[in-house]
Amino acid sequence: METTIPMKISGRNKLNGIVTNIVPGIVTAEVEMDIGNGNSVTGVITKRSLEDLQIRQGDELTALIKATSVMFIKD
Amino acid sequence: METTIPMKISGRNKLNGIVTNIVPGIVTAEVEMDIGNGNSVTGVITKRSLEDLQIRQGDELTALIKATSVMFIKD
Amino acid sequence: METTIPMKISGRNKLNGIVTNIVPGIVTAEVEMDIGNGNSVTGVITKRSLEDLQIRQGDELTALIKATSVMFIKD
Amino acid sequence: METTIPMKISGRNKLNGIVTNIVPGIVTAEVEMDIGNGNSVTGVITKRSLEDLQIRQGDELTALIKATSVMFIKD
Amino acid sequence: METTIPMKISGRNKLNGIVTNIVPGIVTAEVEMDIGNGNSVTGVITKRSLEDLQIRQGDELTALIKATSVMFIKD
Amino acid sequence: METTIPMKISGRNKLNGIVTNIVPGIVTAEVEMDIGNGNSVTGVITKRSLEDLQIRQGDELTALIKATSVMFIKD
Repeated sequence: METTIPMKISGRNKLNGIVTNIVPGIVTAEVEMDIGNGNSVTGVITKRSLEDLQIRQGDELTALIKATSVMFIKD
Repeated sequence: METTIPMKISGRNKLNGIVTNIVPGIVTAEVEMDIGNGNSVTGVITKRSLEDLQIRQGDELTALIKATSVMFIKD
Repeated sequence: METTIPMKISGRNKLNGIVTNIVPGIVTAEVEMDIGNGNSVTGVITKRSLEDLQIRQGDELTALIKATSVMFIKD
Repeated sequence: METTIPMKISGRNKLNGIVTNIVPGIVTAEVEMDIGNGNSVTGVITKRSLEDLQIRQGDELTALIKATSVMFIKD
Repeated sequence: METTIPMKISGRNKLNGIVTNIVPGIVTAEVEMDIGNGNSVTGVITKRSLEDLQIRQGDELTALIKATSVMFIKD
Repeated sequence: METTIPMKISGRNKLNGIVTNIVPGIVTAEVEMDIGNGNSVTGVITKRSLEDLQIRQGDELTALIKATSVMFIKD
């Protein structure tokens, strides 16, 4: 019997959601996800990654964001 | 009477939340936010920005993330 | 009477300028700004942000750059 | 019998190596890896990720780098 | 006689390689390099930089990656 | 006689200035530059790069910023 040891990634932010929109370009592609609670997350990845991961509308994905890429706004 | 025209920022991802934890360092500081729905967002900013914005536990903040900083994981 | 409280952003670098050139692509768009003193700043944002902010040649914009994205060269 | 379906990540660059040096700070930590062929890769992650992943000298790790973070120099 | 003082860049990761593939888009371009030891590095730069540096298949290039852009995966 | 062929870097933004302030931490260091015209640029680099490049107050430096790291604000 095999135990699956999950891959651990140092990137601190992992947000699960459902793909709601894809805009494929030539080099890059935009992927938009609904993460619930009225929030969405949009990412720009390479067209190749879009194809390699076979990302399609309705897919469950996890957005991965490094903490050093996050800024804060205070009103 | 004055109409407030809101500042518009090109960064596509804006996630509202409440500051739950702050780790101040020498140059940088880590800020963790609860964005609801069981999700949290952690950012590393400069210590100076932490002080300039006077970020404190319980504050309402918006996390700002550029779309090119977002990756996706598919299980 | 209303007092406008300005939005505060943790990103440390804010450079004001005038848009001198726009290259719209499919997913992304390149925006070039003259920030005076013989300097220009070029950014690549999503095509959607270009449209949402209605960025046009001659517009006054502020470039926003997180300190962790800045490198230094010494000759 | 169980088949392990590997996690797929859109980040295009994955470089395997052995941890050769760790500098822990307060908020961040520097991790240096030998990726063979005389090359090394250095990353700055949060101190918390260092602890969560229990990264130690001699560990086998994979460096993950998004394609939009890569620049090129031509002599 | 002249001594060439090399330019020094704060970006910690410099990986030398040979260009194996180029995908030119409208705004951006993807460049893939073989860095030896079975490893490759892919970067997305502006189409303009591709043209300014006259990057072509077979060119020797150095990939430059800031340490804060590097994440780590532990299996 | 030797001709120095300058290094060319794909990062589109190069801003020259004079170092006005340095905050050294454990892993990272903050460097602030005056780029003229009332503008300053602040970067966070590794402490090691600060030492390797021997960056000191008053030094002439060039800030290097990839176009994909630039956002825009429109008031």
